[in-house]
Amino acid sequence: MMKPMLQVALDTKTTAEALNIVRQVGDVVDVLEAGTLLIYEEGLDAVKALRAVGADKIVLADCKTADAGGAVAKECKEAGADWMTCICAATVPTMVSAQKEIEVQVELYGEWTKKQAQAWIDNGIKQVVYHQSRDAKFAGQTWGQKDLDAVKELIDMGFKVSVTGGMKPEVLKLFEGVDVYTFIAGRAIHGADDPYEAALEFKNEINRIWK
Amino acid sequence: MMKPMLQVALDTKTTAEALNIVRQVGDVVDVLEAGTLLIYEEGLDAVKALRAVGADKIVLADCKTADAGGAVAKECKEAGADWMTCICAATVPTMVSAQKEIEVQVELYGEWTKKQAQAWIDNGIKQVVYHQSRDAKFAGQTWGQKDLDAVKELIDMGFKVSVTGGMKPEVLKLFEGVDVYTFIAGRAIHGADDPYEAALEFKNEINRIWK
Repeated sequence: MMKPMLQVALDTKTTAEALNIVRQVGDVVDVLEAGTLLIYEEGLDAVKALRAVGADKIVLADCKTADAGGAVAKECKEAGADWMTCICAATVPTMVSAQKEIEVQVELYGEWTKKQAQAWIDNGIKQVVYHQSRDAKFAGQTWGQKDLDAVKELIDMGFKVSVTGGMKPEVLKLFEGVDVYTFIAGRAIHGADDPYEAALEFKNEINRIWK
Repeated sequence: MMKPMLQVALDTKTTAEALNIVRQVGDVVDVLEAGTLLIYEEGLDAVKALRAVGADKIVLADCKTADAGGAVAKECKEAGADWMTCICAATVPTMVSAQKEIEVQVELYGEWTKKQAQAWIDNGIKQVVYHQSRDAKFAGQTWGQKDLDAVKELIDMGFKVSVTGGMKPEVLKLFEGVDVYTFIAGRAIHGADDPYEAALEFKNEINRIWK
């Protein structure tokens, strides 16, 4: 079993704020994510900046692309991203055209079926992000057995599965023995008083659980 | 029956290109859409620019938001948008938190159900965009009775329905007698040799069919 990677979701409003976080946590995290809101605010210049400071990191453009996959993917790749996200509601041709340019992560939001997931993997998609919506979380949902079962099922299907949404260090032990690809933390890291310590807490917990 | 509005989807790579199109078609169209790709490229500055040149127009930020609806909506509103899009895979709380800030259009992509649509309208969402995916279109799908029936059903449910995806003037007559809210054309206008003439062709066809 591989040790899960740690990804920081940089859901900041400005590129400068994102870079400030990277300065603090860059030694600890494996993946730098340009958050959707950040890309809305700054465009793909945010991705270019993360590429510049994170030469040895994986850079993800969290575009949540729903259409014109190839065109968006080309732009993301040119900006320096290694991965980009497509929303699960995108059509398979959209995902496939993106995957031709760049490694695609399908973000699992709202309604999706195992039949759809099978179609993604049958068409060369390798990664999914199991996501608890922040707004759904605000509405009172929490991590639990249902999430764990869904993640395991996706891994069994052959996906590299990242998990995200209100992630905290104490949630990680729920996934003990599960081959999670990446844990994604946003405000738990960049919103912490000490982002470096917060990232380290995640990393230490990963190292403790996945020996 | 209201006369449908005409919306130009500015799916350009730069704000400058979008402004160039607006200069040509601004007298003809009702809604200026900052396309998803344009927002990825330029951030919400693209929306600010459209607001600046289109003081009397409706400005739409086509964010296709899937999460953090309230936060994205607030940014879009501050940038000057009147409307923004949420992807249909977003949760109802995401849509509702966005709708509190700005008028939301739900973009219908991939899998969605009438039950979901009912939940949207029950929660105060007023607009949907019936969308043929460009990639799906490349895969050989065309406009037809199935689309028309779906649009009519959504109107009967109480939605203001915009239609888009490979829209051409000759497609409009399919919707004769149907209370379409907005027709959205992208490259059929901005990719035309003469964008003004192309927009006028749409507008004339709307005026001919919806007297």
